Amino acid sequence: MRKYPSLLLENAVNELASLPGVGRRTALRLALYMLRREEDYTEKFAAALLALRRDIKYCKVCHNICDEDVCGICSDAGRDRSLICVVENIKEMMAIENTGQFKGLYHVLGGIISPIDGVGPGDLEISSLEQRAAEGYINEVILALSATMEGDTTNFYIYRKLAPFNVAVSIIARGVSIGDEIEYADEITLGRSIQHRVPFGITEN
Amino acid sequence: MRKYPSLLLENAVNELASLPGVGRRTALRLALYMLRREEDYTEKFAAALLALRRDIKYCKVCHNICDEDVCGICSDAGRDRSLICVVENIKEMMAIENTGQFKGLYHVLGGIISPIDGVGPGDLEISSLEQRAAEGYINEVILALSATMEGDTTNFYIYRKLAPFNVAVSIIARGVSIGDEIEYADEITLGRSIQHRVPFGITEN
Repeated sequence: MRKYPSLLLENAVNELASLPGVGRRTALRLALYMLRREEDYTEKFAAALLALRRDIKYCKVCHNICDEDVCGICSDAGRDRSLICVVENIKEMMAIENTGQFKGLYHVLGGIISPIDGVGPGDLEISSLEQRAAEGYINEVILALSATMEGDTTNFYIYRKLAPFNVAVSIIARGVSIGDEIEYADEITLGRSIQHRVPFGITEN
Repeated sequence: MRKYPSLLLENAVNELASLPGVGRRTALRLALYMLRREEDYTEKFAAALLALRRDIKYCKVCHNICDEDVCGICSDAGRDRSLICVVENIKEMMAIENTGQFKGLYHVLGGIISPIDGVGPGDLEISSLEQRAAEGYINEVILALSATMEGDTTNFYIYRKLAPFNVAVSIIARGVSIGDEIEYADEITLGRSIQHRVPFGITEN
C-alpha cells in the first residue's frame, strides 16, 4: 500500500479510485490537479455532480434521464409518435440521436436480460413498453440492442411480449461496418450481411 | 457536439471532462455510473474532494502537503535531520518514500525551472531551502529531480545557491534501470552509467 502524507489526500484518492477505470495512480494525479487549481474549481466540480445525482429525473414515458417529468424528445411535437426505438441505456439513445437518422420516440430499458449479472426481465422497463404498445398509438417498435447473446435474448423476450399488440417489431440491421474491409470482417457478421442483403440503391440515400 | 438529454448531465460531463486525461466519452460514462450508484456515493465523493481542497495544509518546513502545520515526516523524531532530499512535487516524494531507502527529510520545490512554461526560480521553494541550509543543521542535500534538461537546470541553480553554506550537495545516480537489457539502453544513459561506475559489491545490499 502506498503511504499518503495526508489523510485528506488519501480519502480523496480513495474516492476517485472508486470510479470505474480509474486506478490509484490516476486518482492521485487528479487529486493533485485539484490542489493546483483554484478552490472554485473543485467547488463547481462537486456541485455539478451533486446536482446531477440529487435533481435528475427520469422521463415518465420513455425513462430517459431529463430535468422535467417528461423528456425533451417525448414532449417534442415534431417527432413521430408512432415509432419507438428500444435501447439499453441513455448512452445508446444518445448515440442514435447523434446519427440524426431517427425521428421517432425512444424507450430506455435500463439494461438487458443477463442471468449472469442477475438481471431478469422484471428489472427492466419492459412492462411499461407493453403499456405504451397497448395504448394503440404505436405502429412500429425498433429493437436497437447490442448484437450479443444478451441482446438477442432481450430482443426475443420483447418480441414475444409485444405479440398480442398490433405493432410491427423490427431490428436494426447488422452487417459490415461502413469503412470496413470485407477481408477483415468476422465470419458471422459477413454471413449475416449476405443473408440480409438489400436491393442495390436502397441504402445509398 | 453531442446533445445531452439533460442540462444537469451536461454540466456534470463538462466538469468531469475538465480533468486531465478524461475525455467527454469517459466523462459521460462516469456521470452515468454516479447515477446508477446510491446518492450517498456521490455525496461522499464530493465531500472528500471539497475537504481536500479546502482543508489541506502545506508543511511549513518542507512544503509537503499535510493535515497539520508540520508534516508527519518533518515531525518524525526518528528521521535523519541532517539530510534533505529535494524533489519536484509530492508525487516524487511519495515515490521515494515508497522505496523505503531514505530516512532523511524532504524539500518539495513545487515544480522545476522551465522557461517554456514560464516557471522561474522565484516560483519555486528555493529560498526556503537556502534558509534551511543557513540554519546549520544540514550536512547533505540530495537532488532528486527529473533527469531532463529542466531538471539539470534546476539542479545547477540550487547547487549554486547552496554554495555559500557548509552543505554537501549530491545527485541521485543515473544509469541503466534495474531489469533493463544493456542492448536496449539509450546511449546517453549507458555512457553515464559507465562514467559513474561503482566498485563491485557496493550496490548489492
